[in-house]
Amino acid sequence: MRDLLEQLADDLLAGKLTRDQFLQQASEAGVARLPEAMLDLDRAQRCGYPEVIFGEGKTAAGVISICQALCEKQQAVLATRVDAEKAAALMTAFPAGNYNAVARTFRLATGPAVERRGFVAVVTAGSGDIPVAEEARETLDWMGVETAVVTDVGVAGPHRLPMHLETLRRSDAIVVAAGMEGALPSVVGGFVSCPVFAVPTSVGYGASFGGLAALLGMLNSCAANVAVVNIDAGFKAGYLAGMVAQRAAPPA
Amino acid sequence: MRDLLEQLADDLLAGKLTRDQFLQQASEAGVARLPEAMLDLDRAQRCGYPEVIFGEGKTAAGVISICQALCEKQQAVLATRVDAEKAAALMTAFPAGNYNAVARTFRLATGPAVERRGFVAVVTAGSGDIPVAEEARETLDWMGVETAVVTDVGVAGPHRLPMHLETLRRSDAIVVAAGMEGALPSVVGGFVSCPVFAVPTSVGYGASFGGLAALLGMLNSCAANVAVVNIDAGFKAGYLAGMVAQRAAPPA
Amino acid sequence: MRDLLEQLADDLLAGKLTRDQFLQQASEAGVARLPEAMLDLDRAQRCGYPEVIFGEGKTAAGVISICQALCEKQQAVLATRVDAEKAAALMTAFPAGNYNAVARTFRLATGPAVERRGFVAVVTAGSGDIPVAEEARETLDWMGVETAVVTDVGVAGPHRLPMHLETLRRSDAIVVAAGMEGALPSVVGGFVSCPVFAVPTSVGYGASFGGLAALLGMLNSCAANVAVVNIDAGFKAGYLAGMVAQRAAPPA
Amino acid sequence: MRDLLEQLADDLLAGKLTRDQFLQQASEAGVARLPEAMLDLDRAQRCGYPEVIFGEGKTAAGVISICQALCEKQQAVLATRVDAEKAAALMTAFPAGNYNAVARTFRLATGPAVERRGFVAVVTAGSGDIPVAEEARETLDWMGVETAVVTDVGVAGPHRLPMHLETLRRSDAIVVAAGMEGALPSVVGGFVSCPVFAVPTSVGYGASFGGLAALLGMLNSCAANVAVVNIDAGFKAGYLAGMVAQRAAPPA
Amino acid sequence: MRDLLEQLADDLLAGKLTRDQFLQQASEAGVARLPEAMLDLDRAQRCGYPEVIFGEGKTAAGVISICQALCEKQQAVLATRVDAEKAAALMTAFPAGNYNAVARTFRLATGPAVERRGFVAVVTAGSGDIPVAEEARETLDWMGVETAVVTDVGVAGPHRLPMHLETLRRSDAIVVAAGMEGALPSVVGGFVSCPVFAVPTSVGYGASFGGLAALLGMLNSCAANVAVVNIDAGFKAGYLAGMVAQRAAPPA
Amino acid sequence: MRDLLEQLADDLLAGKLTRDQFLQQASEAGVARLPEAMLDLDRAQRCGYPEVIFGEGKTAAGVISICQALCEKQQAVLATRVDAEKAAALMTAFPAGNYNAVARTFRLATGPAVERRGFVAVVTAGSGDIPVAEEARETLDWMGVETAVVTDVGVAGPHRLPMHLETLRRSDAIVVAAGMEGALPSVVGGFVSCPVFAVPTSVGYGASFGGLAALLGMLNSCAANVAVVNIDAGFKAGYLAGMVAQRAAPPA
Amino acid sequence: MRDLLEQLADDLLAGKLTRDQFLQQASEAGVARLPEAMLDLDRAQRCGYPEVIFGEGKTAAGVISICQALCEKQQAVLATRVDAEKAAALMTAFPAGNYNAVARTFRLATGPAVERRGFVAVVTAGSGDIPVAEEARETLDWMGVETAVVTDVGVAGPHRLPMHLETLRRSDAIVVAAGMEGALPSVVGGFVSCPVFAVPTSVGYGASFGGLAALLGMLNSCAANVAVVNIDAGFKAGYLAGMVAQRAAPPA
Amino acid sequence: MRDLLEQLADDLLAGKLTRDQFLQQASEAGVARLPEAMLDLDRAQRCGYPEVIFGEGKTAAGVISICQALCEKQQAVLATRVDAEKAAALMTAFPAGNYNAVARTFRLATGPAVERRGFVAVVTAGSGDIPVAEEARETLDWMGVETAVVTDVGVAGPHRLPMHLETLRRSDAIVVAAGMEGALPSVVGGFVSCPVFAVPTSVGYGASFGGLAALLGMLNSCAANVAVVNIDAGFKAGYLAGMVAQRAAPPA
Repeated sequence: MRDLLEQLADDLLAGKLTRDQFLQQASEAGVARLPEAMLDLDRAQRCGYPEVIFGEGKTAAGVISICQALCEKQQAVLATRVDAEKAAALMTAFPAGNYNAVARTFRLATGPAVERRGFVAVVTAGSGDIPVAEEARETLDWMGVETAVVTDVGVAGPHRLPMHLETLRRSDAIVVAAGMEGALPSVVGGFVSCPVFAVPTSVGYGASFGGLAALLGMLNSCAANVAVVNIDAGFKAGYLAGMVAQRAAPPA
Repeated sequence: MRDLLEQLADDLLAGKLTRDQFLQQASEAGVARLPEAMLDLDRAQRCGYPEVIFGEGKTAAGVISICQALCEKQQAVLATRVDAEKAAALMTAFPAGNYNAVARTFRLATGPAVERRGFVAVVTAGSGDIPVAEEARETLDWMGVETAVVTDVGVAGPHRLPMHLETLRRSDAIVVAAGMEGALPSVVGGFVSCPVFAVPTSVGYGASFGGLAALLGMLNSCAANVAVVNIDAGFKAGYLAGMVAQRAAPPA
Repeated sequence: MRDLLEQLADDLLAGKLTRDQFLQQASEAGVARLPEAMLDLDRAQRCGYPEVIFGEGKTAAGVISICQALCEKQQAVLATRVDAEKAAALMTAFPAGNYNAVARTFRLATGPAVERRGFVAVVTAGSGDIPVAEEARETLDWMGVETAVVTDVGVAGPHRLPMHLETLRRSDAIVVAAGMEGALPSVVGGFVSCPVFAVPTSVGYGASFGGLAALLGMLNSCAANVAVVNIDAGFKAGYLAGMVAQRAAPPA
Repeated sequence: MRDLLEQLADDLLAGKLTRDQFLQQASEAGVARLPEAMLDLDRAQRCGYPEVIFGEGKTAAGVISICQALCEKQQAVLATRVDAEKAAALMTAFPAGNYNAVARTFRLATGPAVERRGFVAVVTAGSGDIPVAEEARETLDWMGVETAVVTDVGVAGPHRLPMHLETLRRSDAIVVAAGMEGALPSVVGGFVSCPVFAVPTSVGYGASFGGLAALLGMLNSCAANVAVVNIDAGFKAGYLAGMVAQRAAPPA
Repeated sequence: MRDLLEQLADDLLAGKLTRDQFLQQASEAGVARLPEAMLDLDRAQRCGYPEVIFGEGKTAAGVISICQALCEKQQAVLATRVDAEKAAALMTAFPAGNYNAVARTFRLATGPAVERRGFVAVVTAGSGDIPVAEEARETLDWMGVETAVVTDVGVAGPHRLPMHLETLRRSDAIVVAAGMEGALPSVVGGFVSCPVFAVPTSVGYGASFGGLAALLGMLNSCAANVAVVNIDAGFKAGYLAGMVAQRAAPPA
Repeated sequence: MRDLLEQLADDLLAGKLTRDQFLQQASEAGVARLPEAMLDLDRAQRCGYPEVIFGEGKTAAGVISICQALCEKQQAVLATRVDAEKAAALMTAFPAGNYNAVARTFRLATGPAVERRGFVAVVTAGSGDIPVAEEARETLDWMGVETAVVTDVGVAGPHRLPMHLETLRRSDAIVVAAGMEGALPSVVGGFVSCPVFAVPTSVGYGASFGGLAALLGMLNSCAANVAVVNIDAGFKAGYLAGMVAQRAAPPA
Repeated sequence: MRDLLEQLADDLLAGKLTRDQFLQQASEAGVARLPEAMLDLDRAQRCGYPEVIFGEGKTAAGVISICQALCEKQQAVLATRVDAEKAAALMTAFPAGNYNAVARTFRLATGPAVERRGFVAVVTAGSGDIPVAEEARETLDWMGVETAVVTDVGVAGPHRLPMHLETLRRSDAIVVAAGMEGALPSVVGGFVSCPVFAVPTSVGYGASFGGLAALLGMLNSCAANVAVVNIDAGFKAGYLAGMVAQRAAPPA
Repeated sequence: MRDLLEQLADDLLAGKLTRDQFLQQASEAGVARLPEAMLDLDRAQRCGYPEVIFGEGKTAAGVISICQALCEKQQAVLATRVDAEKAAALMTAFPAGNYNAVARTFRLATGPAVERRGFVAVVTAGSGDIPVAEEARETLDWMGVETAVVTDVGVAGPHRLPMHLETLRRSDAIVVAAGMEGALPSVVGGFVSCPVFAVPTSVGYGASFGGLAALLGMLNSCAANVAVVNIDAGFKAGYLAGMVAQRAAPPA
């Protein structure tokens, strides 16, 4: 806001804005009023990436109207938690879009391809964690970060993870998705010198309590470089890892 | 009860009631015995508004019989948590009624229009919170309180809320519905000098635990003027805000 | 902030402020930088009452420095959760102050006495709830609201509450503090037409789980006019009730 | 078992049983081995009433085989948690049986009518609690205890309960079913001198957490004569109340 | 209240009371206003026994003043949760009183000895449950009910309980106190035809979570005649068992 | 890994492997890369039994590809949590396989029949626990361990369990599946000198909280020889019991 | 009991016992009535080892009386959870006893040394888990099982555990004590073919919730051979591992 | 390990190591066996920083021995959760060390000063969060990262945070410590384009449940760039932020 305020103050002094125009613009800048949403158009400049659409609990029409507003501003679209029905409506509205049914993500490029930079490994403990990992991978791809996916290397098979140490060690950040006891991030963390973003998944039964066991396990990790996000929050882990990778590997 | 008792005692002394009539009336006053319910007909006088029907767990026939009893007493009907099936039965029985499918409320006016007074802003953090906000708004409308709805001004887009400060500051009370981390009521509370009634919603996933995270967040709000109601309890937040607004702005 | 911004913009245009002064003042207004805190000096104007000091987790020196800053701005001091040791230090620093050992509150008047207006009943279910009720009462007194305290009228003795109906019915808002099953607010709520601010207390044992049982009971109250605050949050309940009372009974 | 052992020892000494017959009978007495169950035929003598069938998680065939075994021993059948599908199979197998669709109970008389004795009031806070109350009432009827049902007298309508004091006061024990905050048993308990068996119901939403709020409320009841059973356990509350009533009013 | 009202109405009609006296007495009857409490003097008549004093959270002076008020009305005193310090003050004030340091109860007889009737067994799973059992036993003794205490017969030693079957089977009701997994009430329940009042105790460690494991176990008991009270609530279990025993064995 | 490393080091020294072959084999040994999984082929040698397939959250195609890889290595297949739909696909792909619809297990023998050794009793508290017990029994059968199933001997019928003491006492280990309060393992544990593996089941309602009550009960068992596995984890309890039985009864 | 019954029946038939002696002995055999406890003297024969004394919640005098009763029957004493104060009293009463202050165990040999057999590794994740591991080791020593202790090999240092594979692989059973996320048992389980008894410890802070995180992690272990005991239950894990070791390695 | 293995294999081939030396070194490399711990000396190379000592649950002697082992290897010491008593022992043993009593950290430099690079802001919501923030700041200082501390800018005072936007926006990563409802990280996250590491603190009371409310709030943050660590885990948040800062700003 201060950047904006600075410019508006200059305009006010320069007579480019009346006092009322100044007050109006100071309060309404960077927002698109849509039927179901107030879209944050300023986010790409403020936070580095455009606002991402959380598809759950929105109508198909609501999601489409947000996509349109982003397109108009040349901001690349990423929508998560998009079920098959909404996906169909989106693909009809935006035939150039791309729906990943496993990750339940919808993407739509709005400008020239992003230059690739940075590298993130996305690791899963078991096959059931793949949808969450895919959401992370789609997010990283949308951010322009290179990825490698390492699947099914949970701790009960102790010689599976070491096969991938080279991949892990050249990562700028790592995403680890694991359900059940959620022990994998600690083990990964012990091998590397970059941040590990752990995603507990709701994979499991009984006393996994919908991912709570994995969540608590990851929060109590004995590895110092393990940070945690919400249960099944593949998007968030990917986004955080992508931010680190972008900082570590600035564009050429 | 004491008011009633006072009058009955006078009647007893005046010989208008026998001792047995006195005892009977002292115990049965103000209640309608219906097949599935004991309707509290005295509530409008005691609490300011008629009894509101909680539609969940009642049969359509049960709801209809309560509506009829209220109509007979000229008490305005508000039923909440009315699903589509019960709504259809109600609209058949009372064609003059009004069903809001988003709020899942049914209303039926039984007398002259209520005079408008007081003002309450109903605010949501995201699009998913709209049904809860609508339940609050319908309740306020039934109470005769003016409302303004402010949608999708959650804390991650920090310049969206300040656009609405004027609306917030002229409110007699504010309803804020928010899911996920439930942080919005604290921020709203910091800007205003009226009570904020916070409704945690079940919007979210994973560690939101069906609204528990938002509920705990709101209970621990660092803003002193934030009170909390049950998860998804749009009706209750609206009712409380309406009570405050009515007191603050007595009828002309 | 907008009010402030409006004035600063006028000053900028009028040449009373340079552009840099404008930007500086726009960002630093209303805050006192203290060793352990950033004191919100603008709160009285924004929210109706000065910032209240939460004594727990602060050093005695830290609390004293905040008191001094408030005094300098002629803002009346209220500090809560002040233990005996800190109280002694405060009384030494401010001999004119007032410490309530049951409520654990410290108060210090800084200007002329506030004019009394509005009326709030503070009700407890049992003797153990008195400290929480006292914190609410002190808060209301500091706000300039009249109070009446009704003690030990829990639901197991059904004829104790009706003795006080007259007091309850003339209240602008009611505070009810109850531990154990927390049923009293529902019963009170059924008798009155004003908001009831329910405070669950940690009084109880076993499955009361430190007030959780009372908290859940109050959140699920079948009375529509019951709002809830945090466990043992006497201050908050008092503050909210006071806000309502002030609105309902504006100064003469 | 000791009674049995005493008799078997006498038979052994009297030569009516060989040593091996003695050991066999000492270990197998009173049990019927069925395909899915080991039926406790001795329970009526040991505990006063035959084993009751918990219908959930059993196949229709399994329930029918238990009913048959009970019939053969002239023990009156009560099955709870019987859904509509199993009920149809049972009614086909035992046309003389009786299915209560609200209570989801199935009963089958196997001998002469039981003599009525004792009296229990079954009370509900709201309409939604009726199915649980019906399960209790059916159980009491099966036990031969007189009942009266008092519906929808929750605490928010404070003058509804006193209308029924006479019924409550002539009870040998009382069953109270309540959801939401579960406050009704405390209030009932304060009016009577008999035990109150409180059943928390899963009626409610949000922070009722499937009946947990009501359960905790009842466990923390400030009334000394309130005992609690599992959530929605209408059968258990009825059974306990029936036991008390039978003891208090022995057959003529 | 109705009994009272009936009499007051008669007095009113008979001219023994003025209208104002009638209204005053109708609202204040049966309550003693003490400094920290509103004592329910009517409880013995309404509920069968005088109000019992919960010592926790009350001052010694507060407890003493309640004792005095009860003595004046010839009501026998029972105070629970009385720690050693308060006990000393009570024994000084009432040298004829009786303090049980294991049960933490204080008793004071105020009239002729109560005639004994009814019989209750108080059973514990382990040595650690003895204090809770003692609180139950003291309560039963105060109520005039005969008791037998059976200690340390937990389920891991399966032949210890059968030694006491005769005692269990001649009981009118049984109190079972158990910590850890709380399995004993189910086993006891399977042997008898009277109600079992189960008290979970906070004995245990780790995943006993202060008695929660035992509480949940007892609520889910597969025995139909097991009712549950709060964790460590020896008083309540004793009181309920005593009520049943009194009904079953009326005075000669 | 060390065994492998030892051999690879010898081969390296003997010139049978180049340095690069050594490094490659040291890292990739014992794993099959499948589309959705990294199959642990070394597990039979390391842990005694091949990897077992957890069917939940895998596609039918994924499960089939794992079965094929195991078959190729002559490892006997056990898949758990296989629903009816996946079972149909598996039976089509492997007509020689065997699906147990109650246990939801799929098995496929790949070599000569395993020699039977060791003995484990699988015990259930009620009929509803049978599916979990069947999963345990299938696992034990796959491991080559003899079993006996004892059904419906919960603690409320105290003379049912002693009928089976002989079976229990000749077991090398015992599996006990119980829902509700989960008391049976403690009672079984008190009769025997072998380990008892307790499986809490999700059988129950209300405060069983999906098996949590049984889980906590078993963790707090007062019997020293009771170990616990996850809720409904019949496979795990069977596997652990089988391991013990195999050790206790080595092949002839 | 049946063995006993068999013998008593023979004695009855042979005239060695009267009918009354038979009944008395059948019910009282194998129990010592002590002031605070009913000691299970039959346990060594029934379960393989004498009853172990849980020191918490017992008085020093109570523990001493149990020790004496065991000594009289030549049963080796093990007492757990013995604090320093009770330990001093025990050492005074039994100077030949042995107190381990880290494990808080007291032991007293009562006969010839037990022959050693079987082998169990006791593993800890961190230094803080040592007291729990010591309790397990003392228990195993009392049972006559050889042990090796492996300390501080938690998963964050991935090359520490493999150093001990040889020790792990020659174990008949393994005890693993771990706090925080409790991941170590899964990793250990993946390397061995014997049962792993996992003890969650209360080591940790914040969201470890007193060991709950570790407990849930272990219950959800992806390794099939991991069984779990209560938080901090070193005794139980040792006892179970010892049982397995004894079966696997019968005495020469 | 592979790097190490690669080198050892070369040495083996080159004859510098015998086969047995190779196997020994392959398994013991990088670990120091201490009395209470297995110190991970390889961590600095593997993870970028030496092992950090968690002081809680270790003896003073144990901590000192680890410090000595690190010093010998020229690794800089950081110990957290060091209470005053252990600090005194450490300062005696290492007079050159540095103890921060607010953060409860002990540090000891072992070589030349680290070159400063990267920048991290450490932000607190209230004064009570300062100890956690100090632990983070000490950790960052030990890692060689520049820091700025921003105190007491919680959301209820909405104009305090914007004053510090410039500091926040030039950070490579941000640590935010907040108790109560934990809303601050979401608000900070909405202003910046770097990762935010949120630390819930145990500051609060009642329904904060020791930091649980803040933890859940942060996990459910609507800002995409917020990762979470354990309650009060200032060290971990600092460590993660430092890792990011180091990557973003490589040494000159």
